[in-house]
Amino acid sequence: MGVADSPNQVPFQRVSVSGIHVTGVPLEDLIRAASLLISALGLRQHYMEVSGQSFYKSVAQYLSGRGLPQRNIRNKNHYSMIFDKALKQIGTEEAERYLQMTICSSDEALDQPSAHDGYSPQHSFSHVNELNATSFIHRASAPRSSIESHEDLAEPLTPMDLDPWACPMPSDRRYECRWRRGVVRVYRDAAAEVPLPYRYVPFTQYVEDLNRLSDMISDGPLKSFCYRRLSYLSSKFKMHALLNELHEQALQKAVPHRDFYNVRKVDTHIHAASCMNQKHLLRFIKRTLRQHAAEVVTLHKGAPMTLRAVFEEMQLDAYDLNVDILDVHADRNTFHRFDKFNAKYNPVGESRLREVFLKTDNHMNGQYFASIIKEVIMDLRETKYTYVEPRLSIYCKNRNEWDKLASWALRNDVHSPHVRWLVQVPRLYDIYRINKLLNNFQEFLNNLFDPLFQVSIDPNSNPELHKFLTHVIGFDSVDDESKPENPHLHAAMKTPEHWDDEENPPYAYYLYYMYANMVMLNQLRKEQGLNTFVLRPHCGEAGPPTHMCAGFLLAENISHGLILRKVPVLQYMYYLAQIFIAMSPLSNNSLFLRYHRNPLPDFFAKGLRVTLSTDDPLQFHYTREPLMEEYSIAAQAWKLSSCDMCELARNSVLMSGFPHEMKQYWVGADYQEDGPCGNDITRTNVPDIRISFRHETLLDELGNLFKVSAD
Amino acid sequence: MGVADSPNQVPFQRVSVSGIHVTGVPLEDLIRAASLLISALGLRQHYMEVSGQSFYKSVAQYLSGRGLPQRNIRNKNHYSMIFDKALKQIGTEEAERYLQMTICSSDEALDQPSAHDGYSPQHSFSHVNELNATSFIHRASAPRSSIESHEDLAEPLTPMDLDPWACPMPSDRRYECRWRRGVVRVYRDAAAEVPLPYRYVPFTQYVEDLNRLSDMISDGPLKSFCYRRLSYLSSKFKMHALLNELHEQALQKAVPHRDFYNVRKVDTHIHAASCMNQKHLLRFIKRTLRQHAAEVVTLHKGAPMTLRAVFEEMQLDAYDLNVDILDVHADRNTFHRFDKFNAKYNPVGESRLREVFLKTDNHMNGQYFASIIKEVIMDLRETKYTYVEPRLSIYCKNRNEWDKLASWALRNDVHSPHVRWLVQVPRLYDIYRINKLLNNFQEFLNNLFDPLFQVSIDPNSNPELHKFLTHVIGFDSVDDESKPENPHLHAAMKTPEHWDDEENPPYAYYLYYMYANMVMLNQLRKEQGLNTFVLRPHCGEAGPPTHMCAGFLLAENISHGLILRKVPVLQYMYYLAQIFIAMSPLSNNSLFLRYHRNPLPDFFAKGLRVTLSTDDPLQFHYTREPLMEEYSIAAQAWKLSSCDMCELARNSVLMSGFPHEMKQYWVGADYQEDGPCGNDITRTNVPDIRISFRHETLLDELGNLFKVSAD
Repeated sequence: MGVADSPNQVPFQRVSVSGIHVTGVPLEDLIRAASLLISALGLRQHYMEVSGQSFYKSVAQYLSGRGLPQRNIRNKNHYSMIFDKALKQIGTEEAERYLQMTICSSDEALDQPSAHDGYSPQHSFSHVNELNATSFIHRASAPRSSIESHEDLAEPLTPMDLDPWACPMPSDRRYECRWRRGVVRVYRDAAAEVPLPYRYVPFTQYVEDLNRLSDMISDGPLKSFCYRRLSYLSSKFKMHALLNELHEQALQKAVPHRDFYNVRKVDTHIHAASCMNQKHLLRFIKRTLRQHAAEVVTLHKGAPMTLRAVFEEMQLDAYDLNVDILDVHADRNTFHRFDKFNAKYNPVGESRLREVFLKTDNHMNGQYFASIIKEVIMDLRETKYTYVEPRLSIYCKNRNEWDKLASWALRNDVHSPHVRWLVQVPRLYDIYRINKLLNNFQEFLNNLFDPLFQVSIDPNSNPELHKFLTHVIGFDSVDDESKPENPHLHAAMKTPEHWDDEENPPYAYYLYYMYANMVMLNQLRKEQGLNTFVLRPHCGEAGPPTHMCAGFLLAENISHGLILRKVPVLQYMYYLAQIFIAMSPLSNNSLFLRYHRNPLPDFFAKGLRVTLSTDDPLQFHYTREPLMEEYSIAAQAWKLSSCDMCELARNSVLMSGFPHEMKQYWVGADYQEDGPCGNDITRTNVPDIRISFRHETLLDELGNLFKVSAD
Repeated sequence: MGVADSPNQVPFQRVSVSGIHVTGVPLEDLIRAASLLISALGLRQHYMEVSGQSFYKSVAQYLSGRGLPQRNIRNKNHYSMIFDKALKQIGTEEAERYLQMTICSSDEALDQPSAHDGYSPQHSFSHVNELNATSFIHRASAPRSSIESHEDLAEPLTPMDLDPWACPMPSDRRYECRWRRGVVRVYRDAAAEVPLPYRYVPFTQYVEDLNRLSDMISDGPLKSFCYRRLSYLSSKFKMHALLNELHEQALQKAVPHRDFYNVRKVDTHIHAASCMNQKHLLRFIKRTLRQHAAEVVTLHKGAPMTLRAVFEEMQLDAYDLNVDILDVHADRNTFHRFDKFNAKYNPVGESRLREVFLKTDNHMNGQYFASIIKEVIMDLRETKYTYVEPRLSIYCKNRNEWDKLASWALRNDVHSPHVRWLVQVPRLYDIYRINKLLNNFQEFLNNLFDPLFQVSIDPNSNPELHKFLTHVIGFDSVDDESKPENPHLHAAMKTPEHWDDEENPPYAYYLYYMYANMVMLNQLRKEQGLNTFVLRPHCGEAGPPTHMCAGFLLAENISHGLILRKVPVLQYMYYLAQIFIAMSPLSNNSLFLRYHRNPLPDFFAKGLRVTLSTDDPLQFHYTREPLMEEYSIAAQAWKLSSCDMCELARNSVLMSGFPHEMKQYWVGADYQEDGPCGNDITRTNVPDIRISFRHETLLDELGNLFKVSAD
């Protein structure tokens, strides 16, 4: 452990290890572990590239063999200013030590990594030219930098602000789609015999890769290696916090205006049908019942039924209704009872009420659901700094579900700069098959993807769906992961058109076919100049570790990831690949894992990129600010610092699928850069110290692996 | 364990123990324990009576030897109706078993305890005359009972709603006060030689009683006895919950309209200077700085200083200010550092900002503080169901503090039906003495009590103070209890007029002189027809157990009580006496005890009467609903049921000092009755089952003790 800053590095108290075999395992174990882990990272890189999903830049640099990436640096003036501000907080003596550390030539300062395009000087505080340790009056008297006053400007206008549904309408490509072994192939036209040269990953390849990962996670020496590295990472963060906490605090104070309340936070995992809290839903139902009792809301044995009649049949009136009767909140009895939890989506235990109030596709075309979502959106507008990525369902029972969903959104004008949608696909093939709604799994896939390919080939064929999709950022796969299944795939498995069993395909099978078709769809859409999608499945909330292997290969990021706590190899791999994980400890607390045992603080300490999300405010939260409640409880239970909380918030923005310009406005122009260059403390309130620590720690880990594999 | 309901009892699954020596300890131990505990209860009863503070009725009945009190019952129709409602929830078979249990003659039903005055039939659901197991349509079709529709009415109007400061003005009694050994004596007139025959407890008596309690808590056999009983209580509650949880839930559902959100909750422990959250204070400061920069807010070396100048001196402007700079939130560094925590009351670490924004007595007569308190009050009005009892400070440095405080409240019109004040007295004699502001402890007491006696003898002598006191419900004693002190009192201690040491008197000494003078004051005020006060000190947040012995004798109820977890005898005594304890686990989490180790759920299970309170939203909470946040975290961390939460809320109303009529309106006309008769589920949302369980359990415990002592 020592304090040693090189010029051009963010100065802070660094913990470093010196010696020859710094990983603490025998060299042969290290070599073997390195080659396995690097090959796994290589696999993920391939899957991400093929699908057009993002992959962590620094890892890609290592994998490309273009030498080890330099530690990202900034010019010295940037730090001068930060010191100016921080000096007041930390006292002169310490400050002078800092100043000495930062003396460096401006030539060195310009020695920035090549990946550094787009890093424009006016964003780097270059207006502060001198290191003037006596002028601490910056806060009160210095002119605000352009980037600070930026905040006073309106947010970047996108065409959407004028007409939220406005978007380019590419012309018909007249391509033809044909299904082959469960994956769409796109052909130039009906006559073409060879599909377009879109890249993809065959199922057999996927099975092979998945099995490789499955072998890896149970490999003894590799387990020990990963466990040791994770323990090391955990200790290192503890030391970092002890040594740098006060400096992090001082730097945060030095940022004018910004604090945890006004940094942007995205709720990256929330379901639309449960995005309001219980009291909100109750009030909405009561109000609707008072004002619209005579509306026909459903059919009962074919006959129209008014809202009043629905409630009369349940022997309920608006006044009587209370939160206890509504009975949507998770309680002691939902723990390890996903079935009971699912039933909580039915207000008053009545699926009819769910249909009337919480569905997009019902007798009234989801009008009530649209209204309550719009109320939630209004609240978000008032809160200003909170954004959400709610899930809407496509069940794949029927081909016209997409049409109905899009038409629901457009007719009711359900949209907001605060909202981007994910589409969740419940893994319910078995139910539909048993009820003879489907004949085989291929039909399930048809219902999911056919409309998407058609509208992407010819947007004018379905303008509503085309427009709606511009607000959709990806796909989620949902259901109880703890349901028994045979998690192992093999190459000779039935293909979807032959999968006519009443049994559900395993998780990893579902996920592959969502991925594989999304790969094709994304290439088609990219060609058309349209937005592409990511896969962000529920993954590792429960169930076997294979789910998380599938996620590692196929998903840009995931929700939950609880299972990682039991699988050190995967945990370390998720760390190395810097895969975002949207965690919902309150949800877990009601379903799978008591709050105080939640691995979030541990993952966070080790440097896995986690975020805090609410999952289901309807079932779990009490206040009118569910995301803030989630943060508050985490902060209290785990004694998170303001820096920790701002880092979680920054992660949530980076993970999210909001437009590039908005992300730049929220967390900094260069947010796509790894390390401190990608951070803008004036927007994120996260000190560069923290980001540098994370970045350097990761590079050290990667360095350990790539060094021996290169030797 | 068995299921056995006697007629007229609330029917539920009862856990009972049969045998001869049901306490599980040798008879001689039991006899000895009983006599010690009963004498302790007798002591408390005496101290409460003398001071006009309340004492738990059933315990008083036992102590009076008027035979064992009957288990409070209700007429059968009450239960009929509840069953009607509950049946739908619990299924017919079980329901029929219930029905059989409740068959009882109406003569028996009228056999109610004598203490039952004021229990009027129209409040007891007597409009439901028949037990009709087939008509479950109550919810939708039954006419609402008078008590239900009551809710639609406005809250009871008090004279205060018209003029909040209106109150009777008794005429001058021309009494004279003379201090004697630190306690005021009241004389008929200046010539009288014998004081009025007010009751009181001499210091020597108090010391003797306190030492008796101190001996008791370290008595080995008694410790074992109490520990066993407490463990039994804890197990009994667990069984109760397992067996009755679903019925409690069903009964809650059967109550129209009422749920946890619209039961009244009182924040029984909160400090006025920290009753807003950090974001609220930040916004207030920013707004004030923008709008009133030119106002003179303080004196600097005798010269007037504007708000602008204050901020310029700190090199801060309104835009720059953020929550991090404000730095009022508790963090990892406040744990076991009460001194650091206290410093958090200074925004930006500047005591001047505290003076300008958070004091009633400053250059601008506390105008800003009044404004922000009024904003908090406005929020409470909107939330509707939340009430607060904030603490305002009297430091006792100066005789005119009371005048200034009252004049602050009246001039700024700071009042609300949502607010009743407590006056907190920081135990800071030593600081004032060292700074030569006081010569002895008697002067401290003079500054605290002289103005109160004067205005109570002749309200017209100080109408503002007189009016202000009608909104004050009691006294709090505050400071760091973990400061080293010699906690033991002895009869030969210096009296206040001779206490001129630079050392602070011990906690128990402070508390006695506050109590003893309050005793006199209450008797005087009662004679004048004025409201009286209670003692609700911070007690047992840390420090030696003696604090809690003093609290047991002197205080109607207390804040914190954490220390009870280490002292089984005291814990059992607080249980037997049913002393309310306002607990603040989030505050403890930042200062003295990690959240997951907080004894609240344990105390609650055993039947100690605890409430949830916030203490300092400025330092601990994140959302705009701090009390709801406190409940939410407790509910999540400890998996509280809706019934548990509503019981906590009911406790908070019972504990509070709000007017009798408001309490009746909030929790039921007969709230002063012990047991289910005092409960009105339509207002509290707490099923009688729960209240009966608590009541019967307490009577069993008391019965065990009084039986052997009577034998």
